[in-house]
Amino acid sequence: MDNTNPKKIKAGIVGATGYTGVELLRLLAGHPYAQVAAVTSRSEAGVRLADYFPSLRGVYDLAFCAPEDAPLAGCDIVFFATPNGVAMKEAPALLAQGVRVVDLSADFRLQDLAQWEKWYGMKHESPEWAAKAVYGLTEWRRTEIAAAQLVANPGCYPTCVSLALLPLLRAGALREGMPLIADCKSGVSGAGRKAAVNTLFGEAADNFKAYGVSGHRHLPEIRQTIAALQEGVAAGLVFVPHLTPMIRGMEATLYVRLKDGTDPQALLEAAYRESPFADVLPAGKIPETRSVRGANVCRIAVQQAPDTDIWILMSVQDNLVKGAAGQAVQNMNLMFGFDETEGLRQAALLP
Amino acid sequence: MDNTNPKKIKAGIVGATGYTGVELLRLLAGHPYAQVAAVTSRSEAGVRLADYFPSLRGVYDLAFCAPEDAPLAGCDIVFFATPNGVAMKEAPALLAQGVRVVDLSADFRLQDLAQWEKWYGMKHESPEWAAKAVYGLTEWRRTEIAAAQLVANPGCYPTCVSLALLPLLRAGALREGMPLIADCKSGVSGAGRKAAVNTLFGEAADNFKAYGVSGHRHLPEIRQTIAALQEGVAAGLVFVPHLTPMIRGMEATLYVRLKDGTDPQALLEAAYRESPFADVLPAGKIPETRSVRGANVCRIAVQQAPDTDIWILMSVQDNLVKGAAGQAVQNMNLMFGFDETEGLRQAALLP
Amino acid sequence: MDNTNPKKIKAGIVGATGYTGVELLRLLAGHPYAQVAAVTSRSEAGVRLADYFPSLRGVYDLAFCAPEDAPLAGCDIVFFATPNGVAMKEAPALLAQGVRVVDLSADFRLQDLAQWEKWYGMKHESPEWAAKAVYGLTEWRRTEIAAAQLVANPGCYPTCVSLALLPLLRAGALREGMPLIADCKSGVSGAGRKAAVNTLFGEAADNFKAYGVSGHRHLPEIRQTIAALQEGVAAGLVFVPHLTPMIRGMEATLYVRLKDGTDPQALLEAAYRESPFADVLPAGKIPETRSVRGANVCRIAVQQAPDTDIWILMSVQDNLVKGAAGQAVQNMNLMFGFDETEGLRQAALLP
Amino acid sequence: MDNTNPKKIKAGIVGATGYTGVELLRLLAGHPYAQVAAVTSRSEAGVRLADYFPSLRGVYDLAFCAPEDAPLAGCDIVFFATPNGVAMKEAPALLAQGVRVVDLSADFRLQDLAQWEKWYGMKHESPEWAAKAVYGLTEWRRTEIAAAQLVANPGCYPTCVSLALLPLLRAGALREGMPLIADCKSGVSGAGRKAAVNTLFGEAADNFKAYGVSGHRHLPEIRQTIAALQEGVAAGLVFVPHLTPMIRGMEATLYVRLKDGTDPQALLEAAYRESPFADVLPAGKIPETRSVRGANVCRIAVQQAPDTDIWILMSVQDNLVKGAAGQAVQNMNLMFGFDETEGLRQAALLP
Repeated sequence: MDNTNPKKIKAGIVGATGYTGVELLRLLAGHPYAQVAAVTSRSEAGVRLADYFPSLRGVYDLAFCAPEDAPLAGCDIVFFATPNGVAMKEAPALLAQGVRVVDLSADFRLQDLAQWEKWYGMKHESPEWAAKAVYGLTEWRRTEIAAAQLVANPGCYPTCVSLALLPLLRAGALREGMPLIADCKSGVSGAGRKAAVNTLFGEAADNFKAYGVSGHRHLPEIRQTIAALQEGVAAGLVFVPHLTPMIRGMEATLYVRLKDGTDPQALLEAAYRESPFADVLPAGKIPETRSVRGANVCRIAVQQAPDTDIWILMSVQDNLVKGAAGQAVQNMNLMFGFDETEGLRQAALLP
Repeated sequence: MDNTNPKKIKAGIVGATGYTGVELLRLLAGHPYAQVAAVTSRSEAGVRLADYFPSLRGVYDLAFCAPEDAPLAGCDIVFFATPNGVAMKEAPALLAQGVRVVDLSADFRLQDLAQWEKWYGMKHESPEWAAKAVYGLTEWRRTEIAAAQLVANPGCYPTCVSLALLPLLRAGALREGMPLIADCKSGVSGAGRKAAVNTLFGEAADNFKAYGVSGHRHLPEIRQTIAALQEGVAAGLVFVPHLTPMIRGMEATLYVRLKDGTDPQALLEAAYRESPFADVLPAGKIPETRSVRGANVCRIAVQQAPDTDIWILMSVQDNLVKGAAGQAVQNMNLMFGFDETEGLRQAALLP
Repeated sequence: MDNTNPKKIKAGIVGATGYTGVELLRLLAGHPYAQVAAVTSRSEAGVRLADYFPSLRGVYDLAFCAPEDAPLAGCDIVFFATPNGVAMKEAPALLAQGVRVVDLSADFRLQDLAQWEKWYGMKHESPEWAAKAVYGLTEWRRTEIAAAQLVANPGCYPTCVSLALLPLLRAGALREGMPLIADCKSGVSGAGRKAAVNTLFGEAADNFKAYGVSGHRHLPEIRQTIAALQEGVAAGLVFVPHLTPMIRGMEATLYVRLKDGTDPQALLEAAYRESPFADVLPAGKIPETRSVRGANVCRIAVQQAPDTDIWILMSVQDNLVKGAAGQAVQNMNLMFGFDETEGLRQAALLP
Repeated sequence: MDNTNPKKIKAGIVGATGYTGVELLRLLAGHPYAQVAAVTSRSEAGVRLADYFPSLRGVYDLAFCAPEDAPLAGCDIVFFATPNGVAMKEAPALLAQGVRVVDLSADFRLQDLAQWEKWYGMKHESPEWAAKAVYGLTEWRRTEIAAAQLVANPGCYPTCVSLALLPLLRAGALREGMPLIADCKSGVSGAGRKAAVNTLFGEAADNFKAYGVSGHRHLPEIRQTIAALQEGVAAGLVFVPHLTPMIRGMEATLYVRLKDGTDPQALLEAAYRESPFADVLPAGKIPETRSVRGANVCRIAVQQAPDTDIWILMSVQDNLVKGAAGQAVQNMNLMFGFDETEGLRQAALLP
């Protein structure tokens, strides 16, 4: 791959040994206008990417750098694919030098820092940048993202849920009185690539369970997004994530009561007519996660529950692509004036 | 295994080449008071069970019989593990001879035959036995089941959903106005063991999707069970099944609004104090499907959704055991005066 | 996607509803110099590709044609992704009109038609084209493939085994007296996308077994390839395929005894120095199938078994890519003078 | 479950939080003549088994004890389900008090302690008990096991390989000159239940690879078993384990050259005629791992490779049952004079 094209922007990745990091590397490898110039990992400094991730043999010649040695300040954009709490410490120095940043962690996602500190259990160290960060739900913030210096890339669940809901909320179509229910299911890669017992193959395979029922960090994030459009609905949101035995993929089944006369199919189609990566299925179809495996697409469908006034929204995405690294590249494209689809046109891997 | 003990009752299985059939064979192999005396299959007549299912080598010496040759009339009990529409044709002759029958198909589950004919797309051929059949949700019908000649073994989803809900419904604890939402997930064995593209490994693995959103046959069955206790709630039931990439297992996440002062944990615990196979988890715990793999147990938990008045019920079972063959054996135990747990005390297979 | 570029060659696909067909569609969607102009399916004629394979929504506007209506004669190249026995009947008419053909089925793979008829159980209907067909193991036949009108795309097992072995055979490095053992494992997609019980999720998941031990159709194909280089070794080949519970991926573990002084690592590296899609791992590394998921690469390693004179070759590929559709596109590239890697540079999907 | 029957022997389990530990608990729960009286875990002391493993709810009332507090000396038998290096330190004190011990770790498996120390990288701390330990490959050592105070329970690979090979070796049927090749595949639970990246679901699912090619600890163990019967064959053994994406299950495909006139099918059948848990399939059948899921059986088949003088042995078992906990219980049965099959008659879980 050509990583030395002088006309390409230079991208850095901080913390690229995890699943979102390697997914960024996969997607950027095929990007016509961006090249990965620096990749950091404290534990793997000096190791070639292709030795650490054999899937990248023949794709990258780079090696991981220790963070302090990496030429990040010389990058046009730096992605943080780090655990929560790192970007708020390390991004401000880069931002101060004019580098643009997309943070894939949760550090800059919540505007209410008291809420952030409560849910993430630490003090926020960069309130000023948190105030300036643009929430990178691409389809809903294109103008702000294009102008942003710091983009807070949304969580996977918030992306999957919000893309389905926002067209209805914007139209004021939800009836109050019925809570908004989001029953969500994620593949195991959503838990990250860290040594742990509960995500071992022997624990997670052939198994299904809810988790985080008493409170998941994506709950306030989804509420924040909804509240901007319909305050009352946000407060009543019920969000239950589940772990399902697949590597990638996320599905959200949402239950809403709509005002009389609402045509949710039409609202969805109208909202995303110009959005290549938010795909509204024809009426009557049901989305499946494998239809987006490896692809930067969220596919959405809506149906009425039989004999009731409840509507069912179904939304699927690849948690590592549209739910993380793909949306980050989509945001980068807007930030640098590239076509939104550059580097992201690969079809899903099926089967 | 000893299949010739004269003190054991004789059991027949019609249609034992499917997943519920082989599961009946597995469970009955270890039953101290029942022996399998006849197993029918038209396509496999003459084939030894142990040749067809190598897991049964050393366990059974029997061969499949053609239905017309099988000594079913000499059995004390016959299980129908057949596609819908078979039992209503073939069971009446056996019933007329005094044989007791547990039907694992849907033929006798709905009392409203007009509904049955609409959902199953055929004419019901045994209305008189449909009227006499006892719906075999064991924990809720012990007396009727013990006296029944014909038991309609419940569907997998209806078992999983009803066991969690009925204690609350009986107490009249649900508030009207909010629909009752049942978001359910099933392993792929629930689709049966017939050649089909959509349940191939290459289609169902690493994939998650809703299905039957516009109407699933278990919807009227669940409504019938609920309506007996709280009519208004049944009408508003929303039921969305999903397919999850695991062999066995089923999870139901239910969303309900409860009347003030309700203690759902206490109601559940009180309801199942004497029920060895309905297991209410301690407050704060979340059930997972692997905790019941191969075991005849439904495990149930309840939690309040944060910041809302919605309660979340979670219920798991092995769809082939408590959701089918295990409950059928449990019903047989009651019908013949055996302890409810005979043949069903095996611990779940974990991992 | 741009399917109307007049400078692109036109490609047709016969039988595109299977796994190799949809994989061709995925790969060709991103090819800069080829466009899919016709896709046939008798059963799905008139159905849009994107409706049949939702993964292709937004990628293709085409619909399936009935074979007799498809503009195949106007194509520059036609791929047959059909069951065995179709291409030998239908390809000759196209070939006679000057269309170039890559057949992904087995119809033209064996030079010895008596062998072919024995293994495939039918009469060969196009002996003249069988004689002209070039066996498309790309890395070993580049010149012949470039000039071929008809390419017989190799089987998945023969590709995986041959790429590892041929460098050693060409060097005459194998010692006689020890049979050549190929213990191979395939993901379930290798069995194709047809309704069948034995590849249901419920049958193939969490299960491992050998199959075809008494004779598999890829055995004579591998022997033919080997025999061209070292007759005696071919006759003694032992080939045992196994089914492993994964969607995609194939691994071959080969056991050979090498002549004194042989350096298999050096032979492999020398053989593939100029081959972008045959990747020899550094000494001591072991390949894993996920390192090639979705990518057109075969990764190969070699190690000596401890305390013995046996060498172990390990070779992995994605059975649907380098083992089928990817190699077909690679062959197309050579046939039309494109760079061998066009349309095939995507990195593997990991995780 | 009845854990207080005075006529039952008392069993202790040291280190029961791992997969072999919980499998021992599952099997012993149904044993008519043994009860679990003490279970130790340093990290989980005080936690109820049923809280740690929800699959055991309703099955055990016991809690984990700290090792120093556990009434192990009062047990009739103690199982060590501990990491290597623990039993050699802790078992001798119990043995000295007359407690019988089955060690599921590797501490007492190798008679050659220099070899042991080389492969396990530590000094052996109990050479005297290592000399007295009986290697517990049940079908081949019944008399010694019955009389043993200390049984070294075999490794999973050695059990699967040895049961298939020993009947041929005992008959002197293997031809020299051809190395004995054992290509083995294990489910992921074989790696144990410890936090690790390489056995995460996201790493091990949909993936297949060899490992330990340059030397696996089960190699000397298999060689020791073989050498007792045919020295020359043992030295030439080639053993390559592979990791396959399933929870449980192990398959060994063995390649041997037999002396003229050998009838391996007859040798296998004769060897295991009286062995309920070594099941020789009829000629022409191929075993699959799911036929033994959860069952204490090793199923074995043999076929000749087409057109060669090589024979292929195929052997499957559940790595956690016949490959670990099940064989341990089988050995306990012999040690205490119970029928070999007590507690072990459960049929495999299929699907």
